[in-house]
Amino acid sequence: MDEKKLAIIATKGSLDWAYPPFILGSTAAALGYEVEIFFTFYGLQLLRKKLSLEVTPLGNPGMPMPLGMDKWFPVLGTALPGMQSMMTMMMKKKMADKGVASIDELRELCQEAEVRLIACQMTVDLFDLDTADFIDGVEYAGAARFFEFAGESDICMYI
Amino acid sequence: MDEKKLAIIATKGSLDWAYPPFILGSTAAALGYEVEIFFTFYGLQLLRKKLSLEVTPLGNPGMPMPLGMDKWFPVLGTALPGMQSMMTMMMKKKMADKGVASIDELRELCQEAEVRLIACQMTVDLFDLDTADFIDGVEYAGAARFFEFAGESDICMYI
Amino acid sequence: MDEKKLAIIATKGSLDWAYPPFILGSTAAALGYEVEIFFTFYGLQLLRKKLSLEVTPLGNPGMPMPLGMDKWFPVLGTALPGMQSMMTMMMKKKMADKGVASIDELRELCQEAEVRLIACQMTVDLFDLDTADFIDGVEYAGAARFFEFAGESDICMYI
Repeated sequence: MDEKKLAIIATKGSLDWAYPPFILGSTAAALGYEVEIFFTFYGLQLLRKKLSLEVTPLGNPGMPMPLGMDKWFPVLGTALPGMQSMMTMMMKKKMADKGVASIDELRELCQEAEVRLIACQMTVDLFDLDTADFIDGVEYAGAARFFEFAGESDICMYI
Repeated sequence: MDEKKLAIIATKGSLDWAYPPFILGSTAAALGYEVEIFFTFYGLQLLRKKLSLEVTPLGNPGMPMPLGMDKWFPVLGTALPGMQSMMTMMMKKKMADKGVASIDELRELCQEAEVRLIACQMTVDLFDLDTADFIDGVEYAGAARFFEFAGESDICMYI
Repeated sequence: MDEKKLAIIATKGSLDWAYPPFILGSTAAALGYEVEIFFTFYGLQLLRKKLSLEVTPLGNPGMPMPLGMDKWFPVLGTALPGMQSMMTMMMKKKMADKGVASIDELRELCQEAEVRLIACQMTVDLFDLDTADFIDGVEYAGAARFFEFAGESDICMYI
């Protein structure tokens, strides 16, 4: 029997949205899936050797704010300098306290499980990104390459 | 003939992005699909008994602003205290005026149509959410449980 | 052999998120896929004859800021009047400099390749949109129509 296939397009580059592709990718790989993640647009941030991902409550009313902070800083407060850094620090601490692996660790887990990580060549060119900044083991290709695998996949997700 | 299967991952917790999973889920169920929605990250907000979802124009230049408000309050105005509450109130009123069901009603419709609602246990633990706050009839499970169904689905959507 | 099928739901209405549906749609069509894009919520902005799409760094810490602008205007600066227009102008210029087609051109490419563009009738009614503002060749239909095609698709993406 053929193994199942999972195709993911990762387009976001914030700390919170960095988890889904790597958690879903590594979980599927552990379940025996063949997995390919295509990083494009802001998603290329997730392939940097030195990650500097941040999270913001700005424009996301669905984010639970710790300590009732939303009462003290209603909306406008979320735009204050320092708030983004503070939320990023708090999210990382919470993940660590709860035993959730960091993005670095989840990404490594994906690579060990032979999840293929593909960087969108067009976006690399567009933003003049330096591929020396990216981790080893990444392939560079275009959207056509993505369809080759996605067209045969059992699950395809645009994140 | 087997019935079709729709798998949805609901990750957003704002008022506007609460509609797609419940509208798509209930429509598919009405068409005879077997439907499962996996709520994770901010999406868990959609399972609260007492919903307090909001919508914001912040960071969403695609949102049509009523009454030419974007002319009076260019961008910075969208961060003013009170703007988020006002937009939330206006969106709810518009939906009601147009005869669109509320999120509470759409969610109930889903449950009546036997759409399975699954809460991501990891996120519940991570944000220390109290499951007593959630509606009845929700299952609690991990990502592996999601793949069981999604791997057999005809349509899978990450919202 | 049947041709492959790609179904897309386009829900976003900003300049950056206008690219994925049209790039993926036209690429897939070029590869021989039958493609259908269902425009709903803010995604309907992408069907206007006269596009006025904008992009904002607000709420998107994953966006690379040019010229180290994030050092001069930390977070709060992204809410300044004029920033959204400036980022929009810069993104359009960058795309043009790099030879990436504009949204107008990509959309035309899709239509020439017989990608079917479908506008969500419910959203049109909800926001009192005037269909005279939309390009020719668009079909108007509901979610049930979308499932007809998506249920038979090889790839389905919610953007």
